[in-house]
Amino acid sequence: MPNSVDIPEHAVTRYALRVRFCETDLMAIVHHANYLVYFEAARVEYLRRRGVSYAQWAEQEGVHLPVISAHLDYKRTSHFDDELVVEARVSLVTRVKVGFGYRILHGEELVCSGETVLACVDDSHRPRRLPPNVLEVLLAPERP
Amino acid sequence: MPNSVDIPEHAVTRYALRVRFCETDLMAIVHHANYLVYFEAARVEYLRRRGVSYAQWAEQEGVHLPVISAHLDYKRTSHFDDELVVEARVSLVTRVKVGFGYRILHGEELVCSGETVLACVDDSHRPRRLPPNVLEVLLAPERP
Amino acid sequence: MPNSVDIPEHAVTRYALRVRFCETDLMAIVHHANYLVYFEAARVEYLRRRGVSYAQWAEQEGVHLPVISAHLDYKRTSHFDDELVVEARVSLVTRVKVGFGYRILHGEELVCSGETVLACVDDSHRPRRLPPNVLEVLLAPERP
Amino acid sequence: MPNSVDIPEHAVTRYALRVRFCETDLMAIVHHANYLVYFEAARVEYLRRRGVSYAQWAEQEGVHLPVISAHLDYKRTSHFDDELVVEARVSLVTRVKVGFGYRILHGEELVCSGETVLACVDDSHRPRRLPPNVLEVLLAPERP
Repeated sequence: MPNSVDIPEHAVTRYALRVRFCETDLMAIVHHANYLVYFEAARVEYLRRRGVSYAQWAEQEGVHLPVISAHLDYKRTSHFDDELVVEARVSLVTRVKVGFGYRILHGEELVCSGETVLACVDDSHRPRRLPPNVLEVLLAPERP
Repeated sequence: MPNSVDIPEHAVTRYALRVRFCETDLMAIVHHANYLVYFEAARVEYLRRRGVSYAQWAEQEGVHLPVISAHLDYKRTSHFDDELVVEARVSLVTRVKVGFGYRILHGEELVCSGETVLACVDDSHRPRRLPPNVLEVLLAPERP
Repeated sequence: MPNSVDIPEHAVTRYALRVRFCETDLMAIVHHANYLVYFEAARVEYLRRRGVSYAQWAEQEGVHLPVISAHLDYKRTSHFDDELVVEARVSLVTRVKVGFGYRILHGEELVCSGETVLACVDDSHRPRRLPPNVLEVLLAPERP
Repeated sequence: MPNSVDIPEHAVTRYALRVRFCETDLMAIVHHANYLVYFEAARVEYLRRRGVSYAQWAEQEGVHLPVISAHLDYKRTSHFDDELVVEARVSLVTRVKVGFGYRILHGEELVCSGETVLACVDDSHRPRRLPPNVLEVLLAPERP
């Protein structure tokens, strides 16, 4: 296996969510830390649409994917009750790491873009290789 | 041991904290769910001032105290950067439960009062008796 | 108008949500403060299914409904990725207050029940009467 | 004024905080989104130690500093009740933007490093120049 893997075009999921009241701050906009939460919810959905529950991976296979770096560019504000679409796309796969790129859209407007890199670790937080079945799921298209 | 225990007057701790930006909402006030977080921080401090780290209790003694009921009365709004004092007082002790009463003050003003009841459980979330050393700490005064 | 109003049976909404990773705590269960957030999300949905955006009410009519008291009974734990149903039912309507009762279910299991009372206030946090159109929406059935 | 400003060595503040129970996740570590919250709390403290309340700036001078980009590198895990030190250092000042660099330490260990860039905007979220008194505070040493 080479150091990194070609990512197919279909390695993308679009996840819709609504901004909750408590996610706003006194500027009446979504507090910037919440976009990391939205990214995470989209990653979980990315797996679910490929037949995997991240909770079961963690419990049954001891596969955990903590975030080791994150980048966010805030383009526009979003507000309470906005319906946002979080587009999550696999952007990097190596033996031990996975990268996701994100675009958060409100209608046609780009609200936030970003990237997170996740490391594969075991139950004791020690690095481990991405198991073949995990790799396969990451690079698969959404199930019908 | 009787069904409930007399609570000494000294079973109280006053914990100061500052409202964080992200704890406000679009009404420019502290979001009401955060008061449960403030209550919890005061409980942890209650134990610390009696020589106990709740983290160590959980890890070393398998003593966990999840919240089984909560009540909150919101009296006045509080705001970003307010310095609040959370007064936490043991209000109930039985064989398997502990109650805390709270008053959150901003200067002289009462912002919020409330109560939580915690059950004693083991690592598997099964009810267990409050161990004698836990009881002792709960009813002790703050250490100098 | 009498001091309180009879509440019709149809004044209920059931809102499904999934537990997010970040809503869990080190006990691997949903942190208890998040149930207030779930209650709130269900209230917003209650209004939406009756044709109202709470955001628009606040902006266009100056009607705000801050929580003035809350009660929660935690019955069972819930976990990451659980699909929960939050049942929100109007339980009280007076000239200036609205009460909601809640039951959070995971399948057939009752996870949490609770109640919140909201006061009607204007843009300056001063009490005001519930306007007739607000009352009407609160007591209406879901739209088809 | 040039495009960017030389930053004095004293433009740094070290802010201590304790990890709250609710800030952990089911991996029993601090959830990664909370580090943005810790960064923010350190920025507010940075200003306070230079005689400024960010809340007053916002209200009285219409100066707001929303985050327009953020980067985080997670180096080690941190846990409930850890006492962390957040070091916030001004890293960039232009006519309309301020950058802060951060290092979060647990004892000697580097837990997380990162950077945020903030834009200066007015009450309507429109870009505005950093006022001279704001610039002065950003580049000042801590008050005794």
